[in-house]
Amino acid sequence: MAKTKKEIVFVTGNMNKLRECKAVLQGFDVVNRQLDIPEFQGEPEYVLMKKAEFAAKRLKEPCFVDDTSLCFKAWNGLPGPYIKDFLAKLGVDKLPLLLAGFKDKNAKMICYIGYCEPGKKPLGFAGVTEGRIVKPKGNRKFGFDPIFLPKGSKKTQAEMTWDEKKKVSARTKALRRMATYLKKRN
Amino acid sequence: MAKTKKEIVFVTGNMNKLRECKAVLQGFDVVNRQLDIPEFQGEPEYVLMKKAEFAAKRLKEPCFVDDTSLCFKAWNGLPGPYIKDFLAKLGVDKLPLLLAGFKDKNAKMICYIGYCEPGKKPLGFAGVTEGRIVKPKGNRKFGFDPIFLPKGSKKTQAEMTWDEKKKVSARTKALRRMATYLKKRN
Repeated sequence: MAKTKKEIVFVTGNMNKLRECKAVLQGFDVVNRQLDIPEFQGEPEYVLMKKAEFAAKRLKEPCFVDDTSLCFKAWNGLPGPYIKDFLAKLGVDKLPLLLAGFKDKNAKMICYIGYCEPGKKPLGFAGVTEGRIVKPKGNRKFGFDPIFLPKGSKKTQAEMTWDEKKKVSARTKALRRMATYLKKRN
Repeated sequence: MAKTKKEIVFVTGNMNKLRECKAVLQGFDVVNRQLDIPEFQGEPEYVLMKKAEFAAKRLKEPCFVDDTSLCFKAWNGLPGPYIKDFLAKLGVDKLPLLLAGFKDKNAKMICYIGYCEPGKKPLGFAGVTEGRIVKPKGNRKFGFDPIFLPKGSKKTQAEMTWDEKKKVSARTKALRRMATYLKKRN
């Protein structure tokens, strides 16, 4: 007899993220909810934990939120979480120009996930992918994926198939860590 | 008989800013207080208003806070308030490299002041100085002043004397707006 899958809520309005997430969290019934969450200020991890806590309290069910930073080595980790502002203000085509004055094109994508059950402390899971910044190639639907070439890959994250991306993506790594934790605990 | 000067509190621990401020707000007795203020997230003006409100409530006296953004035209206004992170992570010498990939070196310094009296709504005053980004010159004590060449000037803000800087500085402009308001009202 088939086991009933445990429902888990991903607080997002982004269907691409939901699809990626469902593919990784097999064994869970991932559903999404959209929710306006007030923004707190501070280190990315702290901000995300507070968001997860707020969402769990509001939704009254276990849920998680995610956030991805893009950290340039030559910029000592910046733009980090500000990458979303840069993408919005400049567009993906101009992003590589940000590093024109720097020889070192190395970068990290860091995905943070904040998971929380109502009334409990939020938990954090991180996934990191090393790579470098290149001219944009591939599907323009995926944020800053077109300029990120993961280490050892000849394709940017935006040129990859779902299966290829699943192997390298920082979000996949963070999701897997969360899944491992949840399965152990059950 | 000399009029007693009205005391006004500048919430800052920066003695250079206090000195600049005293020079502009003649007619007021400017004193400084250091205060840890929680950071709110949002647009720079909103964040600053909330800070002023918090400080006035805590100090129980009229006070103001300030914040300066550096906005690159080629970056559609970024780094804006994030310039402080860039200065901290890269140092002033590397800041001009940020624009190496962009022809347009134009930039604006925008100073926002948030003024609040206990129990009242906070008020905002802004000062803007147009200019462009150059290789750093002048006194390294003054944040990102060494890379900012105000329009019509041959000196960066960090090469100027106090009197020269008073004429062009965005903070001076914002302070003068606040002074005009306070004098009219009294």
